Amino acid sequence: MTTDPTRDLLPEGLEDRLPQSAAAVARIQRAVLDVMRSHGYDRVRPPLIEFEQSMASRMDGLSTRRMFRFVDPKSLRTLALRSDITVQVGRIAATGLSGAERPLRLCYAGQVARIAGDMLDPRREELQVGAELVGADSVAAAGELVEVAIEALEAAGAKGISVDFTLPDLVDTLADGPLPLDTATRVAVRRELDAKDAGGLVDAGGAAYLPLIHASGPFDEAIERLSAIDGAGALDSRIAGLRQIADRVRGRARLTLDPSERHGFAYQSWLGFTLYAEGVRGALGRGGTYRIGAGSMGNEGEVATGFSLYPEELVEAVKADEDLGRRLFLPPDHDRDAAARLRGQGWRTVAALSDQDEAARLGCSHRLERTEPVPVRS
Amino acid sequence: MTTDPTRDLLPEGLEDRLPQSAAAVARIQRAVLDVMRSHGYDRVRPPLIEFEQSMASRMDGLSTRRMFRFVDPKSLRTLALRSDITVQVGRIAATGLSGAERPLRLCYAGQVARIAGDMLDPRREELQVGAELVGADSVAAAGELVEVAIEALEAAGAKGISVDFTLPDLVDTLADGPLPLDTATRVAVRRELDAKDAGGLVDAGGAAYLPLIHASGPFDEAIERLSAIDGAGALDSRIAGLRQIADRVRGRARLTLDPSERHGFAYQSWLGFTLYAEGVRGALGRGGTYRIGAGSMGNEGEVATGFSLYPEELVEAVKADEDLGRRLFLPPDHDRDAAARLRGQGWRTVAALSDQDEAARLGCSHRLERTEPVPVRS
Repeated sequence: MTTDPTRDLLPEGLEDRLPQSAAAVARIQRAVLDVMRSHGYDRVRPPLIEFEQSMASRMDGLSTRRMFRFVDPKSLRTLALRSDITVQVGRIAATGLSGAERPLRLCYAGQVARIAGDMLDPRREELQVGAELVGADSVAAAGELVEVAIEALEAAGAKGISVDFTLPDLVDTLADGPLPLDTATRVAVRRELDAKDAGGLVDAGGAAYLPLIHASGPFDEAIERLSAIDGAGALDSRIAGLRQIADRVRGRARLTLDPSERHGFAYQSWLGFTLYAEGVRGALGRGGTYRIGAGSMGNEGEVATGFSLYPEELVEAVKADEDLGRRLFLPPDHDRDAAARLRGQGWRTVAALSDQDEAARLGCSHRLERTEPVPVRS
Repeated sequence: MTTDPTRDLLPEGLEDRLPQSAAAVARIQRAVLDVMRSHGYDRVRPPLIEFEQSMASRMDGLSTRRMFRFVDPKSLRTLALRSDITVQVGRIAATGLSGAERPLRLCYAGQVARIAGDMLDPRREELQVGAELVGADSVAAAGELVEVAIEALEAAGAKGISVDFTLPDLVDTLADGPLPLDTATRVAVRRELDAKDAGGLVDAGGAAYLPLIHASGPFDEAIERLSAIDGAGALDSRIAGLRQIADRVRGRARLTLDPSERHGFAYQSWLGFTLYAEGVRGALGRGGTYRIGAGSMGNEGEVATGFSLYPEELVEAVKADEDLGRRLFLPPDHDRDAAARLRGQGWRTVAALSDQDEAARLGCSHRLERTEPVPVRS
């Protein structure tokens, strides 16, 4: 045999999922989609590839530089492999489903890719599963999405779910109102809040924003501290909304608040949330309220609320225990009706291809004898 | 609003699937995978992207020229977006699962893409779902795969399924044995048989192969005619195998034989088959026996049997009638336990986001009153 030893290596950040982990991915995807479907979300399937320009025009604050791009020999325009399905669903809502009644509930699942991973996550391809409610960004809409996200993660087998809320436009709301800041100071205040650097915040001229650093932590205490800051009147509706959402899901997830957190919320308007689960590295997903296609084209799109899950690390956490099902060995000339009946009952049959009894070698716990499964002696 | 009117157009051959057709895709994919799983096939998930060289080395007779390709900034090597998952599953069998027991039953589902469509099918992206049995290419293995393929298509909702069998190495088998041909004549004979051109076949020096043109049609008659040709002794085992496979699935599908058909069977060894269904344009899939990685590297891989389904045209045929499920409107302050119970029974709930009763406008057939669904008056 002449074999190039490198030919089977996969590129960095790309991997095969073998049966145990592939079964976990499939089960999780199905469970999440089933929950979304049961709450009225209709699935849509955008393509893997689009015009780079079309993607870019809908990606507020994000660049197509992180996408795999290539020239289309048909159109001679640049295509991009999608790195996010949310923007595609926004496009569908604005085009193919522009005439559908609002609020419009849509969901999706598919692979996304990016040209480079990062230190925290070297993956260059992953599954994204999400739900978008188009035409509403109210407290009721956000509460529904948070609840559906928690239920979806529960159905996927996640334990110890927690939700961390944020108010992505918090600084702007305060700076435009009770705690005015000029443009340059606003940028500095945001930066120091991101770094949670109290000294830096004071030096930057944002002393009035100091209480925000301490208004994070377990939800009930943090929302009290947020309500007590000077100028909190400007946040009344947001604080009331957060409390309503928290009341709705209390007891099903651990709730925290980090009101000035902006990382990962470049799109969002008044509300953002990040989803975690015990024993799962990093965030499992994020969501919030936003405006579709409020991008570089300058047009104002519809309001929407949604969330995306990235289940790869949940798969890593559960794959070792993933149940591949009971296997039933079918000897040559077995009763075919009995085999079909048992498959209908959840058995996975493994048919003999030779005269040898290979039940044990092929991992079957049972063998079909006449019409019933009989345990294989080990 | 300033909107570039072209920004929402998708590239030629790429499309969005809206709820009705997306639901059909999801249902079909699930049904097919469930059948494969029940017959002992474990799912694997290879990545969307691989090194071009790795794909090419496993694609016997196929070129990577039809793949989307681009340079990886990480490795500085050329990557390709997959156009076929079978070769990836072969790679997995030869690498990550090289130590797994044989026969090894694997299945997969995922999107594949090609840089250019063709006249018959302008699509540049489609779903491929398939099953591969690695380590066997016997009659028993082929019979199992044909049966699983039919059962999978039935489960997907295909009606009037037909299977067209072929013997991809037929001319070689005869030319190496009872009906010898030199290399140049062999090429010409294959070409004229492909064209079913009797005159051309005689002119090319393949008069002895003339009966093959007439050995196609409904299975039972065609296999009789094939058995009767001069030199059929060299085909004894193949003819017996075909008969066994046909007996196994008779009554579940219309069976035909076109023994010299080679189109789409560049990979296959002794057996190939193509799957069709009534009311569905073109072939729904194909399969057969082959050897993994018997490619340009010159090494001999394991024997295998498998099939791939391409369900897009089945989706087109069924999508208008796809059932999106019963929708139940949930008024504000509805009984949440009742709603959860009804979701568990298959209802899709649509929660009110305002005080208005939008049941009818949002396509709900029923409204939750206290704890039970009540039909919406129209």
